[in-house]
Amino acid sequence: MSLCWERIAEASLRNNSRLCVGLDVDPQRLPEKIKAKPDPIYSFNCAVIEATLDLVCCYKPNAAFYEAQGAAGVDTLVRTIQFISGRVPVILDIKRGDIGNTATQYARAAFECFRADAVTVNPYMGLDSVAPFMEFPGKGVFVLCLTSNPGSADFQLLPEENPLYEQVAVKVRQWDEGKGCLGLVVGATHPGRIARLREISADLPFLLPGIGAQGGSLEAVSAAELPGEKLGVVVNTSRSVIYAGEGKDFVVNVREAAMELRDRIGGPVNDT
Amino acid sequence: MSLCWERIAEASLRNNSRLCVGLDVDPQRLPEKIKAKPDPIYSFNCAVIEATLDLVCCYKPNAAFYEAQGAAGVDTLVRTIQFISGRVPVILDIKRGDIGNTATQYARAAFECFRADAVTVNPYMGLDSVAPFMEFPGKGVFVLCLTSNPGSADFQLLPEENPLYEQVAVKVRQWDEGKGCLGLVVGATHPGRIARLREISADLPFLLPGIGAQGGSLEAVSAAELPGEKLGVVVNTSRSVIYAGEGKDFVVNVREAAMELRDRIGGPVNDT
Repeated sequence: MSLCWERIAEASLRNNSRLCVGLDVDPQRLPEKIKAKPDPIYSFNCAVIEATLDLVCCYKPNAAFYEAQGAAGVDTLVRTIQFISGRVPVILDIKRGDIGNTATQYARAAFECFRADAVTVNPYMGLDSVAPFMEFPGKGVFVLCLTSNPGSADFQLLPEENPLYEQVAVKVRQWDEGKGCLGLVVGATHPGRIARLREISADLPFLLPGIGAQGGSLEAVSAAELPGEKLGVVVNTSRSVIYAGEGKDFVVNVREAAMELRDRIGGPVNDT
Repeated sequence: MSLCWERIAEASLRNNSRLCVGLDVDPQRLPEKIKAKPDPIYSFNCAVIEATLDLVCCYKPNAAFYEAQGAAGVDTLVRTIQFISGRVPVILDIKRGDIGNTATQYARAAFECFRADAVTVNPYMGLDSVAPFMEFPGKGVFVLCLTSNPGSADFQLLPEENPLYEQVAVKVRQWDEGKGCLGLVVGATHPGRIARLREISADLPFLLPGIGAQGGSLEAVSAAELPGEKLGVVVNTSRSVIYAGEGKDFVVNVREAAMELRDRIGGPVNDT
């Protein structure tokens, strides 16, 4: 098993939490108090992290929100990951996919520049677009499988018999044999499909977005679990935690929202 | 038709060229003379652009190569696009795809920070991951359809009857109705499949990578063409042009390689 999966599992046990907080920061939604700071997104992230560090098993910044701020935003992302580093693992949500030599550059960006512990990637271009990410020892790679958004129906659910997302799960499991570094992104908005996906995928860890603003279901979590202390599922939520407060004491609301959600999701200790 | 497609078609007619030069710069492969400069990748790009500007219909930097250099690389990418700006269009190759509110951030990054004229996107997550890019007036969006790499066989070619890449082409054509801003990425490494794809896709412009280092075929180009002055196909090549020379006069080799390839591909004027 990849060191990254082990470290997420450790943090999950330590904090009795399957919660991953998504650091997807829209500068327009920051509390007024933070907007006045020199690097508001970084200040906001640090405040959210300090308020939730003992409640999560990992964090997941989505690169898009940082790239939208240009080179300065990229620098903010580097420093945010540095701020978390060594405390809990960081999944950098990039959803990249490109031909081999280009994917190598994306993998270098994610693991060497940003120093992420894990990434998300897109399977559309097949194994040689994913393989370069698997060559970094100790890192984790979540492959998009069944996503949480309405557009997941456009291609992933087709054809009805043997749909694309199941084909992806089957191949990802094969690619992972003897490596133990791959996982799947499985949206909590498809609770009825997760039990079968768990069967197909054996022990691959699932990253479950879609709880919170996207309306996903907690049933999905129990269907995705693995027995014992194995890392079965990490539940990501962003907006419903990070924007839980607006006033001066927004961190109090952020912490309450994270704690409430962590407890609703349930931790690994409850199951053993 | 999007202003971006019109501008690529204009440059294509003006330079009698379907060639797009990919600015995918690996710092380790730069000529020695350039390595000594303060921002070697930017210097290299400017030299390549000056040497080929009258031979191309557009340029296509791939974001991965810049991201691998961290925030400084992102700044290099912004300035490279600025350097080209107003002369020929720039396709920013990002292959992004994410849920709606995140895709909006990627679209803002591409069109507002980087000021690209067009982008590439990944269709795996469906319409709501592509739509935010279509909301920027005048811009172009190439959707990955049949990619040039070996991994294209893993999912895109399945099932044999009604393969995923054809499903993508059908949907992209529907999404584009009344808009005229979408195109398809179609690898030149699948020449036998392009005639049918052209039928399915009606007048959607094709971005054809895979000529050059990836061994794609020029037959693919004629199968992808559209009659008259319509923008049917843009042929991207990177390594075989930008690394054509190593010595002091590398720009001479770059220009020769671009001219030779442009002439082999053939320009729109030859067909009318």
